[in-house]
Amino acid sequence: MAGVGEFDIIRDYFAGAPTGESVLLGIGDDCALLQPPAGSVLATSVDTLVAGRHFPEGTDAAKVASRSLRVNLSDLAAMGAAPLWFTLALTLPSADRKWLRGFSHGLLETAREYGISLVGGDTTAGPLSITVQVTGHAAKPLRRDGASVGDAVYVSGPLGAAAAALPVVERKRKVDAELQQAAEAAFYWPEPQLQLAQSIAPLATAAIDISDGLLADLGHICRASGVSATVDLESLPVAALARELAGESARELAATGGDDYQLCFTVPAAQVPELEQLNSGAVRIGTLVDAAGEPQVLTRWRGQSWSPKESGYQHF
Amino acid sequence: MAGVGEFDIIRDYFAGAPTGESVLLGIGDDCALLQPPAGSVLATSVDTLVAGRHFPEGTDAAKVASRSLRVNLSDLAAMGAAPLWFTLALTLPSADRKWLRGFSHGLLETAREYGISLVGGDTTAGPLSITVQVTGHAAKPLRRDGASVGDAVYVSGPLGAAAAALPVVERKRKVDAELQQAAEAAFYWPEPQLQLAQSIAPLATAAIDISDGLLADLGHICRASGVSATVDLESLPVAALARELAGESARELAATGGDDYQLCFTVPAAQVPELEQLNSGAVRIGTLVDAAGEPQVLTRWRGQSWSPKESGYQHF
Repeated sequence: MAGVGEFDIIRDYFAGAPTGESVLLGIGDDCALLQPPAGSVLATSVDTLVAGRHFPEGTDAAKVASRSLRVNLSDLAAMGAAPLWFTLALTLPSADRKWLRGFSHGLLETAREYGISLVGGDTTAGPLSITVQVTGHAAKPLRRDGASVGDAVYVSGPLGAAAAALPVVERKRKVDAELQQAAEAAFYWPEPQLQLAQSIAPLATAAIDISDGLLADLGHICRASGVSATVDLESLPVAALARELAGESARELAATGGDDYQLCFTVPAAQVPELEQLNSGAVRIGTLVDAAGEPQVLTRWRGQSWSPKESGYQHF
Repeated sequence: MAGVGEFDIIRDYFAGAPTGESVLLGIGDDCALLQPPAGSVLATSVDTLVAGRHFPEGTDAAKVASRSLRVNLSDLAAMGAAPLWFTLALTLPSADRKWLRGFSHGLLETAREYGISLVGGDTTAGPLSITVQVTGHAAKPLRRDGASVGDAVYVSGPLGAAAAALPVVERKRKVDAELQQAAEAAFYWPEPQLQLAQSIAPLATAAIDISDGLLADLGHICRASGVSATVDLESLPVAALARELAGESARELAATGGDDYQLCFTVPAAQVPELEQLNSGAVRIGTLVDAAGEPQVLTRWRGQSWSPKESGYQHF
């Protein structure tokens, strides 16, 4: 990397990084050298987490590291891709050894869990932010624009936990130690749905990961595919933690809250029996219908049309 | 990308991005989908530029964009790789339309010049910083660790211009409009040595781009290859702009100043005649010698051993 001295400083902290067979040359030269699996389609995604915006200032470094890699791995899952390698661009106020130890521990633990290799990076002095770029390979990529009228709409698992956890994570709400820990796990250790993605990819027509909120993210599939969706709120799988923390509001958080990193995907009606046989844990929540020129998500709750008070994360 | 709304906001600004045939799906889904050339080795590098550290606050957006992509392309050149695609992670205080127009103009102009495709990104609110990750492919990758005793040491072109320009760019020194423009060109429009790299790659044993300063960067080759280098300062090609701005100090800036993004590379003695026949403009500046267990760069000036007052950029 240009500014080679930069990564040298912290290279030691990442020395234990796992390395897959696709990595010919990792950290330490101007570029990493990589040999993709023969004939593969690569999927790549980049995300930045900024202190004070995506996580509270002063958050434990291992938590920040875990979340920064997991949210990127979730993008690979959303494309039906398997992880290969990633890079890290780290901007931090000073080369704080304790912070770097915690960060590298959290990062490499997550990397080992999901079998992805750290191949390079850059470190600069400045306000704390973390940019991770992941690359994977997909046998059958799942795009947003492949869905059709009649497809069934699924989510991969319970929703609402991360959104319900947010006030606790931000220390705006006090709870007991056990709930505090559960809230932090939901927010900092979301589970990228990589295995489920591999199993449903042959059957699915479109997929997205739920980062901005189910209704907002399903809306992206609808617009890209030129269809509308009907969703029955009663069918949503609501996370137990969301019920515990948010009570009556849990169902709304499941519909509109972000940061759960479950998948939303679509399957043709004819493939629904095969999908159900996978016992993947995915739950059917709706159906795609004719958009009549205006793709949208039509939500019902107890037989009535329902609109969220707010839908999705506002980035600016 | 997760946080898909984010890049949507500015996607329009990058709509004119050139797209190569290796790009199956660009901006707008959870991941870009890419089809690398068959059997190729990929080279990838990431760099972050932070406002107030790598460029002055308030710098024209097009200049920042140009520099951020060019310094990354230089890393591809240093590996002997040809550009394929890149991503952009942009953190900016607000979605300032004028700034975004200027930035996208500078970025896409540079992308077109070097034939590289913008395939994805992320935009977040926060203190201004730009992270670019480039990927290219290399027929014969040039690593730092391939050099041997007896190899000739070359630089690809004149040095010292960017270091001499820095006080002007930072407005610490006032010069006339013409010199101001030349200084800004040297700093914000460095020319990644991609073509030269392709021509010398079959002959070279190691290469690096000069971002931290010649002596520091040649030192990286020496340590990686387990050799020492003798360099004769009188043989250094000194940039005319460095002489004009720095006078007597120009030669020292050529030896130790960073940011020129020329290449330093090594060629076996037997291949020197073939290299010279390329008429690449590269200049021989020294020879690799036995390190005797302690790789270092041994510099001479007018027959005397010479040490720089400072060597290379300090990142923290």
